[in-house]
Amino acid sequence: MTSLNISNELKTLAKSQNIENLINSEPNRLNNFCKKIGDLVFDFSKSNISQSQLDEMIEFSKTKKVEEMRAKMFNGEAINLTENRAVLHFALRNSSREWSAKGSSQSEKMRKDMEIASSFAQKIYDGTIKTKYDAPFKNIIHIGIGGSDLGPRLVYEALKPFNHDGPQIRFCANIEPTEFKYAIDGLDPKETLVVCVSKTFTTIETLTNLNLAREWLQAGIGKDDMAHLVAISAAPGKAMAQGFAQDRIFGFEEWVGGRYSLWSSVGLSLEMAFGRKFMEELRNGARLMDEHFESAPINENIPFIGGLIGYWNRVVLDYESRAIIPYAARLKLLPQFLQQLDMESNGKAISRDGNDLKYSGPVVWGAEGTNAQHAFFQHLHQSPIITPLEFILILDDGLEYDASRQLTLANALAQSEGLMRGKSLETVSQEMRAKGSSEEEIKNIAPHRVFSGNRPNIVTLLQKLDAFNFGALLAFYEHRCFVEGILFDINSYDQWGVELGKLIALEINKDIENGPSEKRDLATKNLIEIIRKGK
Amino acid sequence: MTSLNISNELKTLAKSQNIENLINSEPNRLNNFCKKIGDLVFDFSKSNISQSQLDEMIEFSKTKKVEEMRAKMFNGEAINLTENRAVLHFALRNSSREWSAKGSSQSEKMRKDMEIASSFAQKIYDGTIKTKYDAPFKNIIHIGIGGSDLGPRLVYEALKPFNHDGPQIRFCANIEPTEFKYAIDGLDPKETLVVCVSKTFTTIETLTNLNLAREWLQAGIGKDDMAHLVAISAAPGKAMAQGFAQDRIFGFEEWVGGRYSLWSSVGLSLEMAFGRKFMEELRNGARLMDEHFESAPINENIPFIGGLIGYWNRVVLDYESRAIIPYAARLKLLPQFLQQLDMESNGKAISRDGNDLKYSGPVVWGAEGTNAQHAFFQHLHQSPIITPLEFILILDDGLEYDASRQLTLANALAQSEGLMRGKSLETVSQEMRAKGSSEEEIKNIAPHRVFSGNRPNIVTLLQKLDAFNFGALLAFYEHRCFVEGILFDINSYDQWGVELGKLIALEINKDIENGPSEKRDLATKNLIEIIRKGK
Repeated sequence: MTSLNISNELKTLAKSQNIENLINSEPNRLNNFCKKIGDLVFDFSKSNISQSQLDEMIEFSKTKKVEEMRAKMFNGEAINLTENRAVLHFALRNSSREWSAKGSSQSEKMRKDMEIASSFAQKIYDGTIKTKYDAPFKNIIHIGIGGSDLGPRLVYEALKPFNHDGPQIRFCANIEPTEFKYAIDGLDPKETLVVCVSKTFTTIETLTNLNLAREWLQAGIGKDDMAHLVAISAAPGKAMAQGFAQDRIFGFEEWVGGRYSLWSSVGLSLEMAFGRKFMEELRNGARLMDEHFESAPINENIPFIGGLIGYWNRVVLDYESRAIIPYAARLKLLPQFLQQLDMESNGKAISRDGNDLKYSGPVVWGAEGTNAQHAFFQHLHQSPIITPLEFILILDDGLEYDASRQLTLANALAQSEGLMRGKSLETVSQEMRAKGSSEEEIKNIAPHRVFSGNRPNIVTLLQKLDAFNFGALLAFYEHRCFVEGILFDINSYDQWGVELGKLIALEINKDIENGPSEKRDLATKNLIEIIRKGK
Repeated sequence: MTSLNISNELKTLAKSQNIENLINSEPNRLNNFCKKIGDLVFDFSKSNISQSQLDEMIEFSKTKKVEEMRAKMFNGEAINLTENRAVLHFALRNSSREWSAKGSSQSEKMRKDMEIASSFAQKIYDGTIKTKYDAPFKNIIHIGIGGSDLGPRLVYEALKPFNHDGPQIRFCANIEPTEFKYAIDGLDPKETLVVCVSKTFTTIETLTNLNLAREWLQAGIGKDDMAHLVAISAAPGKAMAQGFAQDRIFGFEEWVGGRYSLWSSVGLSLEMAFGRKFMEELRNGARLMDEHFESAPINENIPFIGGLIGYWNRVVLDYESRAIIPYAARLKLLPQFLQQLDMESNGKAISRDGNDLKYSGPVVWGAEGTNAQHAFFQHLHQSPIITPLEFILILDDGLEYDASRQLTLANALAQSEGLMRGKSLETVSQEMRAKGSSEEEIKNIAPHRVFSGNRPNIVTLLQKLDAFNFGALLAFYEHRCFVEGILFDINSYDQWGVELGKLIALEINKDIENGPSEKRDLATKNLIEIIRKGK
């Protein structure tokens, strides 16, 4: 296996580089690092990587066979090695194309399944499919967790108009019971459809909440609650075993990973709330990015450039986390969604061929700006820990508050500039002197007002926050995650790391009832006893 | 300056220690690391620090004069050196005691101010103070950002009963205009009180949203909107200059930092929604922790132990972030609140006496369990990056869903145990063999199912999530933050790192209108031009 020589010299060199010097000295930097596609602009120019280093990274990516792996993915080979599955969620965004998974043709069945699901959803949306009381559904309770929750929840929060015309959606993920209590708060079962989403249909949170929901439904509409239930699963047989009607079960294929499943029938609640045209727009936007990702040369390819820089930040600059800061109240869930996408995909310590890895994906976190400026930007500007940032800006949201919009954009760009440029002790001292501070004050206070700067960030602009542009944005992150995964040498599409906790939880659930078993460690035994006493 | 010898040997030793071995081999560990106060239990036993190392850390804290600094804080000395202010937000939780700030007595004025504010809030709560239309207020729009937002928002989300009897609160922080649009969505100005909170009364987000709110109010109730407005500020003169009526302005003292201001009149909206008794309970719970923190010996002192371990995790084990995982849907904002508290307080690179620091506070992030298990726990279990976790569990929430509650607790404890214990290649291979996997399958798949374990975590249990216990929990974090700040040698009470962005934002706001000034860097100029074209 060839690998870029991530020497200490390279690391030292990279850390000693000055980003603004790169911007000033590299004649084509703004062309090469700032890329437009459709109504989206991705500006990578404030990254701490030179043009020639990026070129080296492109060569490095060839030794990692990123392009070959991309071709294998689009050809439906089983690149999810440990589960022996293809990865084809993006096929759902281009269903007229012929796709195959592990050599077997997928498109005809996919088109048929999508048509059945979509026409069902459309009938909920327009009121053709009715409640037991012959009225359109007013509410949907979407029960699902993780990949069956965050994608639809994000899109709903980001794109629901202030008054959308389909039913409203409440989401119910957590097994912690106040979640369900909030989900039903103020709703009438007579007007409510319960959509239960679980890839395996064995997820304990989801089945537990489904049981609560059915008790609630049945208390309101009687034992026969099937007209108010829908199941979505890649294991439809398991839903049938629970008594769901066959024409109320919508499937999806094993080549759709949970955290990539928004595009499948997992997103059906959105189609019920917003209608078919909306989902088509969302998928069309994503397809724009898919086609770009599949065909553009690496040095023009936005997810590739993003992935190369992500790898550089993690491995060469040794930054352990990255922060996602959308300057949009409606995108407050985007950091969480990307946290799931990246951390579950690339938070691994084993290479595709079973070797230990020193580096893999970073911690991903963040919150909406400008709120975040008043919460944790202190740390981003002045902590010795450097966190690369990713700003997302919306230029126009169709609201009338132009002054607020402009100040929002100004704040985002100001952070982007300030983090890169910083402010020196000399400048701070001069400013204080000009304002009449004494030399003693300057000596005591000025060091606290210094900003070391040279903190990298990426700025992404969307002309409008609509379904098409948002679809393209989400597809960018999916493909970047793929690129980073291949560079780290990871299978981004399994998630063995979630298994252990699930198994122990079932044991401890019994231990809380019966007393701790001998298998438990002493500290956990102690906590179980405390819980048993407090019951 | 004396300092613990954080040698490479100590770091290597600490990283090679096995947490479960410590638990098994140290006879008093569960007594010494698991502490009860009131209805709260803090279990630090799954930390990667031995009893003797903790003892050394206690000695180290003495060289850092943590106890002396604590006494100075409680005595009202100006420990916020760069702003020459005392730090006394906890005085608001024990107003019958005599407090002084920088030598001047505070209690009489504080008691008077609290009584005036509280009796006003109580009259909103019980409907004695009425709208222009002689009816009780149904809604409050709480406008504020950062410290003027997150505390009240957290407490409201965490503790609002499903039907509380005062007005409902909507929060409006972000200058991004959809935030305001959502805040007023469905509300009638005739029934709505606007509470504007800004420590300085110059915060641009808050004043911008106040203007929008007043336009909205005036469109609904006419030019004379004063009966529907309240201002809360440590600069009441500025609110008066904006036309607020004097008896509608509530102040607080400069010794209350923004991110510690929930306990002051900044929390008045909560008192309007929940009533006086609620706020008293919240403060009483916090006082229980204050008194413990002020008086308990270090080795029994919960915020001290927490701070010593936090410092150990950051400096000796070199962990760059920590994750807060409340297993409670109602506490979903707690990670954000603690992110603000810790990162704004301790995300600094300069010591109190102006020297460069190599270490200061970690990145703080997190989300609610069990949702988080399905989002990013993959990374927490298997990434080469180790993130210490902090679990918060609620034993009883007064809801009837006992099975869900028990599974929630079981999941939290399972994660705590699994992260510490991990699962070896041998165990995985044996399990696979027992289930009939071939040797080739085992060879290929088993490495992906290994958990390295030895990942530290803290478990906090609350018997009930009520105002008293929640107050105590929040006070724990405040005091831990103080302890960590002193160990890092930081002034935790200033926030100079937020100043630079604010200044540049005002410049760029003009640049978006008039074209980029020469002061801008080339990349930011380019983005301003893109924004100007897209307008």
